[in-house]
Amino acid sequence: MLEELKEKVFKANLDLVKQNLVIFTWGNVSGIDREKGLVVIKPSGVDYDVMKASDMVVVDLESGKVVEGDLNPSSDTPTHLVLYKAFPNIQGVVHTHSTYATAFAQAGRDIPNIGTTHADYFYKDIPCTRDMTEAEVKGNYELETGNVIVDEILNIRKINPDHTPAVLVKNHGPFSWGTSPDNAVYNAKVMEQCAKMAFVAFSVNPNLTMNPLLVEKHYMRKHGPNAYYGQKGQKH
Amino acid sequence: MLEELKEKVFKANLDLVKQNLVIFTWGNVSGIDREKGLVVIKPSGVDYDVMKASDMVVVDLESGKVVEGDLNPSSDTPTHLVLYKAFPNIQGVVHTHSTYATAFAQAGRDIPNIGTTHADYFYKDIPCTRDMTEAEVKGNYELETGNVIVDEILNIRKINPDHTPAVLVKNHGPFSWGTSPDNAVYNAKVMEQCAKMAFVAFSVNPNLTMNPLLVEKHYMRKHGPNAYYGQKGQKH
Amino acid sequence: MLEELKEKVFKANLDLVKQNLVIFTWGNVSGIDREKGLVVIKPSGVDYDVMKASDMVVVDLESGKVVEGDLNPSSDTPTHLVLYKAFPNIQGVVHTHSTYATAFAQAGRDIPNIGTTHADYFYKDIPCTRDMTEAEVKGNYELETGNVIVDEILNIRKINPDHTPAVLVKNHGPFSWGTSPDNAVYNAKVMEQCAKMAFVAFSVNPNLTMNPLLVEKHYMRKHGPNAYYGQKGQKH
Amino acid sequence: MLEELKEKVFKANLDLVKQNLVIFTWGNVSGIDREKGLVVIKPSGVDYDVMKASDMVVVDLESGKVVEGDLNPSSDTPTHLVLYKAFPNIQGVVHTHSTYATAFAQAGRDIPNIGTTHADYFYKDIPCTRDMTEAEVKGNYELETGNVIVDEILNIRKINPDHTPAVLVKNHGPFSWGTSPDNAVYNAKVMEQCAKMAFVAFSVNPNLTMNPLLVEKHYMRKHGPNAYYGQKGQKH
Repeated sequence: MLEELKEKVFKANLDLVKQNLVIFTWGNVSGIDREKGLVVIKPSGVDYDVMKASDMVVVDLESGKVVEGDLNPSSDTPTHLVLYKAFPNIQGVVHTHSTYATAFAQAGRDIPNIGTTHADYFYKDIPCTRDMTEAEVKGNYELETGNVIVDEILNIRKINPDHTPAVLVKNHGPFSWGTSPDNAVYNAKVMEQCAKMAFVAFSVNPNLTMNPLLVEKHYMRKHGPNAYYGQKGQKH
Repeated sequence: MLEELKEKVFKANLDLVKQNLVIFTWGNVSGIDREKGLVVIKPSGVDYDVMKASDMVVVDLESGKVVEGDLNPSSDTPTHLVLYKAFPNIQGVVHTHSTYATAFAQAGRDIPNIGTTHADYFYKDIPCTRDMTEAEVKGNYELETGNVIVDEILNIRKINPDHTPAVLVKNHGPFSWGTSPDNAVYNAKVMEQCAKMAFVAFSVNPNLTMNPLLVEKHYMRKHGPNAYYGQKGQKH
Repeated sequence: MLEELKEKVFKANLDLVKQNLVIFTWGNVSGIDREKGLVVIKPSGVDYDVMKASDMVVVDLESGKVVEGDLNPSSDTPTHLVLYKAFPNIQGVVHTHSTYATAFAQAGRDIPNIGTTHADYFYKDIPCTRDMTEAEVKGNYELETGNVIVDEILNIRKINPDHTPAVLVKNHGPFSWGTSPDNAVYNAKVMEQCAKMAFVAFSVNPNLTMNPLLVEKHYMRKHGPNAYYGQKGQKH
Repeated sequence: MLEELKEKVFKANLDLVKQNLVIFTWGNVSGIDREKGLVVIKPSGVDYDVMKASDMVVVDLESGKVVEGDLNPSSDTPTHLVLYKAFPNIQGVVHTHSTYATAFAQAGRDIPNIGTTHADYFYKDIPCTRDMTEAEVKGNYELETGNVIVDEILNIRKINPDHTPAVLVKNHGPFSWGTSPDNAVYNAKVMEQCAKMAFVAFSVNPNLTMNPLLVEKHYMRKHGPNAYYGQKGQKH
């Protein structure tokens, strides 16, 4: 069942290790088959070096129930499902505890758009969510984490999730998404690199300024209707 | 004698190198057989790349005397023994000079619980001990180092060592422990990663705040009576 | 056509990866045949691990038109061409988003000449350009990026580009050049290392001072008429 | 001639690369045969990956003249010779531009003894030299660099060079020495690690304090007349 998607999700999970975004089992990637309404996700707490494609767990998008798989799905599965429901164009979701992005989440600060590296992939600042309430933490915590993300992106910041495909959960860590499981991992790596550079940049100049003209230019050069970066037919 | 435990302790010592927690010979791992009252520990000052499982030294828990082994045990052995006596549930102890945890020890600052990465493994801040006195330093130094750790954990902070399995010795470096030699190394790695992220987080926002609800939630999600992270029967 | 130069440019692009100066496709190297008035450059958005020497694109220095190659040249090609025209002695140009140099560009700060590591290769501070104007960003952006660099180097700072072979484009990242594609990559690596050390040095002492006598001495020891570093006939 | 020493010096130079203390050709190691009054040193500006043991250059300690070797000796040779003459017990000298130690040199700050990692190998703060004068820089620069080091260690700070085997040359970088070429490389690595940890520690707590009792205890535990670290007969 969904062998091709399982293979993609499995490989995207291994890429988290290759890209130095996770240690131990601290990350998870999922992918979705929107026609069938099924999500494929990494099992919970399984070491990356013994994990197989067939260990991936298939979960129903609506009910959250396991449809196939012997292992428990990632404990973050309810968060992934909320994101898939709220952001209808996304095809993959990633969660990590990558060093610099997580540090910004712990600091409660957005990763600001202060350079073209950021603007090439994220149109706006990557927002950090508000504190979760007692009801949210003591209730269905992982599902409420998803709700807090969606509230921050769509209502509080009014951000288009397709143009700024990442978020920081305060005192927790980053989530990213994309047009495929692979693309969500790519965005997780860009976010981590942008967080690292922002840390250094603010240390070197706490009063730095961004030229707002570059935000528009760089994002549109790659993603706008007249994009001219890369080769014809290539997606970014 | 204790071949299986020697093998475990030997491999855990090599893992310190793999996890980038030590350079040269700057670290040591021990394990305990509580029934026999014997501790197995790395020899002092031996290079990791020539060390063999049979080089591990067996020491008597009560007397501290070498029971088996041709080499001197780690000079930190008396510290390990104090920890095994004071914390009756622990099965492994680790000492390193890992970069970021040692820097916090040099700074005389606790590694604060400011995110779920920390709260997943350490219930409280990882405490930094007080300055050692002249009597302690000039007396049985390594044994007194253990006493200062135990005093800090049990008396000054009133911390449960099973729930916060690590400490910083001021101007020295980190010690960690756990349910096995392997688990103590795991906790040493988590502590180092948390120290690195705390360094970055405070640089980015010196006035950051932790949501206290997450401390409870994340620790209990993994370690509480109703833990639901990972696979059934799996320990964390 | 220009097979030898293509090979050099191809290898110099791979060296960006080896030197940890780029992730993904975030960098480009070009080289020039000044007699023929032709520039060889990396194609746009092609992964380093599938790229071949024959993928390099040949572009006319004056018109900017593709003379040979099936792929689109790097979107930064117009910037490279402006630099080749304005700096008549340079034979290679490099652009990266390397971590520390890019952070200084985001901070809007020059990489200051505060040590002999810098002075061995760059006579002056590596300047950061002014903000680009609306006309420049909305016009022929990549060409105007080149013009802003040249304006900063030659007019605003009055720097000899052969003696200080690098620049930071504000809120964007570093460009470097040199006596060959290889030498331009070498200068990109030195710039990155100098940026990293400057970040640490200013964190450790915000009021640090440079001994100006060392600037003169070290640059001239390697590059002056009486240079005595290295072996006879060796270039630096 | 001196084949064994050449082999040792050659391997110690390669260790600089393995220990991540140098990039390109930015470092050099020498060793001495005190009976013969001859110093063996790395040639100037030769890549580490093509260098052979037979490329090492033999220089006369007193005259500084090349006694054997087809290549120019390191341009820093006169500095090495001054150190061998002033510090009669040392058998190896190392110079690098390692990242964190060089940043402290650029900052004009000593690497302070703030932890047992430092105290295990360096009894005092690693001192940073004063600014060199015009006469020193424009005169026999590399020899005067050595004189400035010796003046700082012996006269200004009154440090025993055998107990604190390293120095920072202001706005330049670190030198270290030891009981062999290998031991000098070891000390270079410890210095770099201590500089990195001091950078982090001061960022985390600018007002940190060192317990002076630990300085005495840790240095003497390894190097004093009653040293008890390591195995019998082992040197540290």
